Amino acid sequence: MFDLNAYLSRHNKRINAALEALLKASDKTDRILEAMTYSLMAGGKRIRPVLCLAAAEAAGGDIEDALPAACALEMIHTYSLIHDDLPALDDDALRRGKPTCHMAFDEATAILAGDALLTLAFQTLSSIELHEVEQATKWLRVIQLISRASGYCGMIQGQMLDITSEGEHLTLAELKSMHRLKTGALIEASISSGAILGSINSSRISKLESYAQNIGLAFQVTDDILNVEGDPEIMGKAVGTDRLRRKSTYPSLLGLEESKDFASRLVEAALQALESFDQKAEPLRAIAKYIIERKK
Amino acid sequence: MFDLNAYLSRHNKRINAALEALLKASDKTDRILEAMTYSLMAGGKRIRPVLCLAAAEAAGGDIEDALPAACALEMIHTYSLIHDDLPALDDDALRRGKPTCHMAFDEATAILAGDALLTLAFQTLSSIELHEVEQATKWLRVIQLISRASGYCGMIQGQMLDITSEGEHLTLAELKSMHRLKTGALIEASISSGAILGSINSSRISKLESYAQNIGLAFQVTDDILNVEGDPEIMGKAVGTDRLRRKSTYPSLLGLEESKDFASRLVEAALQALESFDQKAEPLRAIAKYIIERKK
Repeated sequence: MFDLNAYLSRHNKRINAALEALLKASDKTDRILEAMTYSLMAGGKRIRPVLCLAAAEAAGGDIEDALPAACALEMIHTYSLIHDDLPALDDDALRRGKPTCHMAFDEATAILAGDALLTLAFQTLSSIELHEVEQATKWLRVIQLISRASGYCGMIQGQMLDITSEGEHLTLAELKSMHRLKTGALIEASISSGAILGSINSSRISKLESYAQNIGLAFQVTDDILNVEGDPEIMGKAVGTDRLRRKSTYPSLLGLEESKDFASRLVEAALQALESFDQKAEPLRAIAKYIIERKK
Repeated sequence: MFDLNAYLSRHNKRINAALEALLKASDKTDRILEAMTYSLMAGGKRIRPVLCLAAAEAAGGDIEDALPAACALEMIHTYSLIHDDLPALDDDALRRGKPTCHMAFDEATAILAGDALLTLAFQTLSSIELHEVEQATKWLRVIQLISRASGYCGMIQGQMLDITSEGEHLTLAELKSMHRLKTGALIEASISSGAILGSINSSRISKLESYAQNIGLAFQVTDDILNVEGDPEIMGKAVGTDRLRRKSTYPSLLGLEESKDFASRLVEAALQALESFDQKAEPLRAIAKYIIERKK
């Protein structure tokens, strides 16, 4: 029986140590670095970096091969949260049970700290010690993949759609496509970049991508469900906010029970995509199930 | 006699065409892309991309080798202006004679458009068609160099210092070090990345770096002078704003005449650094002189 909790805790420890080392690489201690550290080390679930490492393992590689990518993905995710929380965007005061970056510091610092985390992500991805010249090509491919997923054709467009569609009634297809951009693209990139760095056989990469698409969507559906019936104490942030903002969500379009069924079907499809993988994909399987069972 | 105007106009045309092609690479037309295009094509002087191309030429390479880097540098410069102009930072309404991004669109769009330009810069740097595997190593080095220069140990730290030092009396040394970060770092990276992509002999790169440091500072000193005695009509933005904000500037610390002498001495030092270069460095020499003679 695979122990997901032990796996997550082991990998989170490795990711957190690597992130801290990257933040401490400069001898500077200033307000920007303080704000970057505050948000990056605020106890996120580390879903994206764990998926990246698990994909590298499923591909037969070592987690150390993919660690810089895992760190970069978490930096990009954190920067997007910092900017999303700003008064001009979602105007959120609480995140992971703590004041958001602009509340703990100020707006200017939060904007610049977000910019700095995004930039540090690409610095991390390009500062690899290369042992063979072929590695450079792999890392360039990973940088391309991650920048595309987080840019204006991916995550940023999703954020924009999320803002502009507030109060509007979306169809299920529009909702899916918005989430595919807003959260799906970076989750898919996490898995693809882990697979590339773990040196997977390219014919199997499409299976991992299908896994990624399904759990990316399942993750979002579950987020919407938790916004309805989650415990604010456990989640470290307010619930019921989607409804207040008249956001189109899966529960608002499908109802709560149907949304749960939908999430389960997505996880089943994700597991099916991994059928031909051996026991090295066990962590990915366990993560898929965890995504809909989580309470925060 | 080298004709700088013809050179600048030829290179600007090439840079603008390349930037437009990069913006149009996706078939999307949305508000984010509109805002990105608005700011990126607002008629900037293209100093950084021109320096990058001129450095590639001085190194004996072709400008086409360095064009993606030139475009990425202009995207990063533009994103930094968009974020700098935001109400939480400098709160500027006018830039290059036009409403700033958040005035023309709105704050949320300006934040996301800046993020998207920064991300597109790294997508551009990683989407190179590689003809030899060694090129990948060069581009990774360029990505590292540019991300370091624009991150929290470079440009972003300079922006933060610029905000926090408003109203404070800086020493000349503090002012220099702030500008070295805020504008110098990216100007130096423009020249170094052009030189790397133009395949320069590594012993000469330090000479180009000395050139870059000197013109980077000269550029800032001239900016400060123009903020005192420039023509708002020609500059497309208000003047006298530094004084209103009680900013430490070269004119406020050294006086106007001494500042002009200082800028001239910096340009002389920049020219001296290029002494051993042949006529291929003529554009770099002409740009150094132009930097202190410009009226905007």
